[in-house]
Amino acid sequence: MNKDNDFINAVGDMLASWNLSRATGRVYGALLLEDAPVSLDHLGTTVKLSKGQVSTSSRELVAWGLARTIPQPGSRRVLVEATTGLETLLEASQRRARALVDALASGRELIAHDSHAGQRLEDVIALFDGYVRAGDQILHPRT
Amino acid sequence: MNKDNDFINAVGDMLASWNLSRATGRVYGALLLEDAPVSLDHLGTTVKLSKGQVSTSSRELVAWGLARTIPQPGSRRVLVEATTGLETLLEASQRRARALVDALASGRELIAHDSHAGQRLEDVIALFDGYVRAGDQILHPRT
Repeated sequence: MNKDNDFINAVGDMLASWNLSRATGRVYGALLLEDAPVSLDHLGTTVKLSKGQVSTSSRELVAWGLARTIPQPGSRRVLVEATTGLETLLEASQRRARALVDALASGRELIAHDSHAGQRLEDVIALFDGYVRAGDQILHPRT
Repeated sequence: MNKDNDFINAVGDMLASWNLSRATGRVYGALLLEDAPVSLDHLGTTVKLSKGQVSTSSRELVAWGLARTIPQPGSRRVLVEATTGLETLLEASQRRARALVDALASGRELIAHDSHAGQRLEDVIALFDGYVRAGDQILHPRT
């Protein structure tokens, strides 16, 4: 249980640097340890958050494609399950890197291509562009 | 000049989402447009920041490997030049991703490998690990 907490906190800390709230990251960590879909009440006990907070975090996870909810027939309760959908998270990171490449590329019209500054800008763009493409290959192996 | 400002602001905005301050990002944008090393005074005029702010930003850029300073013999003045060293920035991003892989991997001892949760954890780790490796290949093609 202590080790479960360590894992949950570590995943929460890490996802906090990927634009998720720490609470939401902890809920994802807790879900990863569950072998079957769980209720919000169960989740709240595991991560020591109120039902409202767990509900908010679950919605955030669903929006990021990191979890899915399973409605219970004849009940308003839902069960929550982690998915392997880190693609959405990685794609947001890719979009951020691609936006930087685009910003850098907009400088091409401002400096002579054969100048020192022009060559340096091409080098910077090429490095970042290669990084983005490598990530794209992982996320979309066919394209 | 207006287009120069647009470029400088765009690079500043983008680098702000890569853990640099917006001012420092703008100084990097301004340096990218310069064909030769420039003084802090010149930089301050270009980006409309005080000499102190430009000096702080320049130090931050040097620390990130995004710029280098060139001492002027017989003077306390230095000239500043952008480098193509976005590797440091990308490496920081890689470290962040690798720390998440490590956090996720620490969950292996908590769940049975042949369970649904165990298989899902392996899938999540594999996806993130592949992403980190692809980035490593770009940054260190030989390793």
